[in-house]
Amino acid sequence: MVLYAGIDLGGTKLLTVLLNESMEVVGKSKVKTPVLESGDDLVLLMIEQIEVALASENAGTLEDLVSLGVTFPGPVDFTTGYVKDTPNLGVRDFPLRTSLEAKVPGIVVLENDVNAGIYGEFVAGAARGYKHVVGLYPGTGIGGGIIIDGHLYRGASGGAGEIGHMKIQLEGRLCGCGQRGCLEALASKTSLAKDLVHLAGTGKAPTIFEKAGTDIANIKSGLIKKSIEAGETEVQKLVEKAAWYLGVGLGNVVNIFNPELVILGGGLVEKLQPWMFPVAESTMREFAMPSLAAKVELKVAELGDDSVARGVAALAKEAVLR
Amino acid sequence: MVLYAGIDLGGTKLLTVLLNESMEVVGKSKVKTPVLESGDDLVLLMIEQIEVALASENAGTLEDLVSLGVTFPGPVDFTTGYVKDTPNLGVRDFPLRTSLEAKVPGIVVLENDVNAGIYGEFVAGAARGYKHVVGLYPGTGIGGGIIIDGHLYRGASGGAGEIGHMKIQLEGRLCGCGQRGCLEALASKTSLAKDLVHLAGTGKAPTIFEKAGTDIANIKSGLIKKSIEAGETEVQKLVEKAAWYLGVGLGNVVNIFNPELVILGGGLVEKLQPWMFPVAESTMREFAMPSLAAKVELKVAELGDDSVARGVAALAKEAVLR
Repeated sequence: MVLYAGIDLGGTKLLTVLLNESMEVVGKSKVKTPVLESGDDLVLLMIEQIEVALASENAGTLEDLVSLGVTFPGPVDFTTGYVKDTPNLGVRDFPLRTSLEAKVPGIVVLENDVNAGIYGEFVAGAARGYKHVVGLYPGTGIGGGIIIDGHLYRGASGGAGEIGHMKIQLEGRLCGCGQRGCLEALASKTSLAKDLVHLAGTGKAPTIFEKAGTDIANIKSGLIKKSIEAGETEVQKLVEKAAWYLGVGLGNVVNIFNPELVILGGGLVEKLQPWMFPVAESTMREFAMPSLAAKVELKVAELGDDSVARGVAALAKEAVLR
Repeated sequence: MVLYAGIDLGGTKLLTVLLNESMEVVGKSKVKTPVLESGDDLVLLMIEQIEVALASENAGTLEDLVSLGVTFPGPVDFTTGYVKDTPNLGVRDFPLRTSLEAKVPGIVVLENDVNAGIYGEFVAGAARGYKHVVGLYPGTGIGGGIIIDGHLYRGASGGAGEIGHMKIQLEGRLCGCGQRGCLEALASKTSLAKDLVHLAGTGKAPTIFEKAGTDIANIKSGLIKKSIEAGETEVQKLVEKAAWYLGVGLGNVVNIFNPELVILGGGLVEKLQPWMFPVAESTMREFAMPSLAAKVELKVAELGDDSVARGVAALAKEAVLR
């Protein structure tokens, strides 16, 4: 038996999947992300969750594990495998990769979650069978991932895909990075939430105001959907405006990469697809060069919450082959 | 003897180089681009010029030719090898690749000139030894070329690298493509020339006004240089403004690709390097994410007029290996 494990450690959950040689899910586990005492505790938790996943469908034993892929919700040095100070998780400067390698057979790879997510779509979701793919995930920021010729493209130092910090409107809206006019300052969930709480304060989004007040942190994708479905048209307009900016960014992506496929993912797009997707697509096609616009497909990610864990497990397999 | 030929057919000259197995230039020829009667005439001219190059340094005979690469200054269907209507050259819808393949041993590849130029820099110039490189060539427009993991990246249908049509300033200056705020509407030679003739009309650029009047077509890079060297500071400011916009585009490129190296090429940058390069570089580093800005080098192309012919010959060699 040959198994590959993928662990998606997020701010709220730790999701573990086991894949067989055919990249099928043969085991799974999920727990809430606890606050930990140390990096060693994190390693123990991860091994425990791999064991839970192994037991869940009698997938095999720890000895069957050929490699393990992990995503981490904080700053990581991908060359050394160190995770840096991540106070909200209780982990401080810690050699995560080598600590895990001491506990599991085979090799351990760390990857950022957006890269893992788009790679998951590539091996098992919306991008299966495509060679040149770019993924954009609007959330707190806008993450980007790039597949070139069937391989994840990481760039010279693992930092490629910061498409959210592409300037599309010089002198435009302020971004969290300190610059102005970044795509994510105009089309991320955070940017949309800012507009929505402002709107809520004026009384034009009662559904949102009732549940979230004017606190950006309370603006969830599902709540936005409810508001639109309740006929709050100003909310819909703001969602469509964000989708329009997203489409401008997609047009740039098409001009630069001439991809076969662009994928939109993340909770915001998935929940608000009926309003965001058509606007993003038509804007992308309007802003891209006609010859390139004619060659590209736009899809929404298919794997949902599983994409990151499955993708990082697939990357762990690819690392063995390399 | 094994030889690879590259032909750079431009609007003004047809440059032919022969490379040996080590990618060294072992033969060369150059003629003015004539107005031709037909595509067949073009094929005859190309074969003639290969013969001239073969004879120039006793490089070998036509039978030694393993492959031929050609760039063409008009619309090309790279999959079929057809060149489309190119009236200023006298060539109409014509199967250039198959017609050449009938006349030379080995295979024939067509490539666009920017891709060939950056590939030339990769095999023999400023980008030698790098793996991840992006090139930008501000001229009439702004051409872009991308090297990923040591290979030219063409995208899904050969159209990747339209970096000049990346929007960086929505609602900004009108571009030749009909959109607004494209990088090339703000930082190309054409864009700079528009500003310069306007300035010349106000009497603030006498060197330019004397030679070029207010005709954009007369604005040459060398003339701009003379004007700056004559102390026409408003000209220098406009050049630096174009370089600033170029730097914004470079910042986006760094964020997207995390390249090891970015190359600037073309007559404008090469002639005006003392004024453009420092501004472009500092702006690129200011607008890119700090972690990525720290990892990237910026260089000016080294091969000058030879880069395209040498690059397309190298691509012809690569095509044989594939």
